[in-house]
Amino acid sequence: MNQERLNRILTAMKENGVSQMIISDPVTIFYLTGRWIIPGERLLALYLNVNGDRKLVVNRLFPQEPISDLDLIWYEDTQDGVQILSGFAEAGVTMGIDKNWPARFLLRLQELAPDCRYVNHSFIVDRVRMYKDEQERELMRNASLLNDQVMEKLIPLTGQGFTEKELRDKARELYLQTGCEDFSFEPIIGFGKNAADPHHSLDQSRGSYGDCVVLDIGGRKSEYASDMTRTVFLGEVSERQKEIYKIVLEANLRGIAAARPGNRMCDVDAAARNYIEEKGYGPYFTHRTGHSIGLEVHESGDVSAVNEDVIRPGQCFSVEPGIYLPEEGIGIRIEDLVLITEDGCEVLNKFTKDIIVVPCKKD
Amino acid sequence: MNQERLNRILTAMKENGVSQMIISDPVTIFYLTGRWIIPGERLLALYLNVNGDRKLVVNRLFPQEPISDLDLIWYEDTQDGVQILSGFAEAGVTMGIDKNWPARFLLRLQELAPDCRYVNHSFIVDRVRMYKDEQERELMRNASLLNDQVMEKLIPLTGQGFTEKELRDKARELYLQTGCEDFSFEPIIGFGKNAADPHHSLDQSRGSYGDCVVLDIGGRKSEYASDMTRTVFLGEVSERQKEIYKIVLEANLRGIAAARPGNRMCDVDAAARNYIEEKGYGPYFTHRTGHSIGLEVHESGDVSAVNEDVIRPGQCFSVEPGIYLPEEGIGIRIEDLVLITEDGCEVLNKFTKDIIVVPCKKD
Repeated sequence: MNQERLNRILTAMKENGVSQMIISDPVTIFYLTGRWIIPGERLLALYLNVNGDRKLVVNRLFPQEPISDLDLIWYEDTQDGVQILSGFAEAGVTMGIDKNWPARFLLRLQELAPDCRYVNHSFIVDRVRMYKDEQERELMRNASLLNDQVMEKLIPLTGQGFTEKELRDKARELYLQTGCEDFSFEPIIGFGKNAADPHHSLDQSRGSYGDCVVLDIGGRKSEYASDMTRTVFLGEVSERQKEIYKIVLEANLRGIAAARPGNRMCDVDAAARNYIEEKGYGPYFTHRTGHSIGLEVHESGDVSAVNEDVIRPGQCFSVEPGIYLPEEGIGIRIEDLVLITEDGCEVLNKFTKDIIVVPCKKD
Repeated sequence: MNQERLNRILTAMKENGVSQMIISDPVTIFYLTGRWIIPGERLLALYLNVNGDRKLVVNRLFPQEPISDLDLIWYEDTQDGVQILSGFAEAGVTMGIDKNWPARFLLRLQELAPDCRYVNHSFIVDRVRMYKDEQERELMRNASLLNDQVMEKLIPLTGQGFTEKELRDKARELYLQTGCEDFSFEPIIGFGKNAADPHHSLDQSRGSYGDCVVLDIGGRKSEYASDMTRTVFLGEVSERQKEIYKIVLEANLRGIAAARPGNRMCDVDAAARNYIEEKGYGPYFTHRTGHSIGLEVHESGDVSAVNEDVIRPGQCFSVEPGIYLPEEGIGIRIEDLVLITEDGCEVLNKFTKDIIVVPCKKD
């Protein structure tokens, strides 16, 4: 196991008065062991106790080389893995539970070990993962560098008559060519009115002269995720589109300026949101300003009005304000990732935020 | 909502004495509403009460057209969706919970509505989905028909020097060409010793003359999954490989013969497993014989020694015995999907199970 990461988790458990914990998330298990085990619907559970117990309950279908400082506990498909796990539970003691653990395991454990008090203590793991160590910071920088390269190559293709789905496939090829493992999430590519839906699902639409095009894309490199958004314009950009673009860009810049140690996450949200509200578009900025990112594209730690956590070095999150005007067929979002430093932040995306007009034939 | 499917669920709730239930699985919500809502880490919950209450709690980010016979209850990112959901809970009454509901929602609901007794009642939904209706049967047939076509085109490529990862990409192209939406699962493609690992992850290995090649592949067509396995041989097949192949094939045929109404799921497992054991390879058949399939590639209802459920018409599952001999670099699995009829089963995969030797150059 990665001793430094494990120790940070054990320390946080002690600080929070939780002496035992079940970690089920394959991503966190990878984070701690360097081993990917994707159990599908089967039980995978890392039991940690501050007394030193460290057991990984894993189905025999997923054979593993030994892992240092960890007992591998095998079970067969015909066995009840939760029953085996329940044997390790210290009775009468609070048991920290991973936030995504499926109800079928949790309800069964509650039945088998009713003396424990079960509490969602994911925040312990989430907080450790929130502050990227040196190795992770370098991986985040590199992932976003590749994302910039893909964005640069993808943008000219938006004017060439491809459907959104075709552009998605082109984007995937570009990620593979740059050396990424895959997308880090299913991209959002939206022409015209589709751009005005912030969670649009790709379809067979093609761009038309005058459209804005939202490109919200990310790749996975060495297991770490990138995520950025640019909005470009086909053929020409109208005065109205320019007006909205400038507001969103200023909101993006204000959010980034607020992303520094000592500020709270909600201050970043407010910096972007207040500006959009001042300009009269508050109701059209319909989502949070951003999300944390790392091994997963959405990690714990929203950039939203309700997150009052104070920002600390090592955090990595997106700043992605947008304005969506479905009636006008206009949607604009600009997103960068930032990595918090000792006295501010490093913007991981270097790709230009100047207005880009992509050559495109008039219909 | 699909009234017939909803009624089957409400009837099963009444039969099992559960008057209220939370369904969170996007697949089941699609099954009932025809609407795909992929909430990511956000709450999505369909609350059903036998008294007629039907509420879908959904984040405002995922706008929906109205759905017949269903109240859409919106929440914002800044709101606690579980609190809204808890307002519908009937106090003091058992609440059925979906098996995959993440612990963070369940533990929060247990805190907000402590008077309910929470029980994993997924089996109610799972059992309804287990018996495919006419429309679904036709979709399952069609998905496997396309899978046969992909298998036929993929097999000759195994002898042409591609890596496992390259073959995966070829397979993906073939699925798209046949009109599938995508893979139904990340395929298992294993050459030689990799074939001997039943859950091998694709790597950069290339096939060599004399290798066995396990191809465990499936696509998604009109949302329904296919899944089949064939094992082929590069250049030539040794007497030893033939011997193992014949045992696995006979086990596959015996499993299929046992797949009929009135038998139990474990009888199918036993039919395949006992034969392999008789032949002395019991310890080398290291997994269950199969799994149910439908909208998801792994659905509730294992073909395993512990599943004593009696088989009924409309069920669809895989029969996939295998023998894995890592020391000899031999792994062979043969898998078909079966659809249970009134008096037996329909084998959905028509592709040959004769031994196939793929032309391949000697190294």
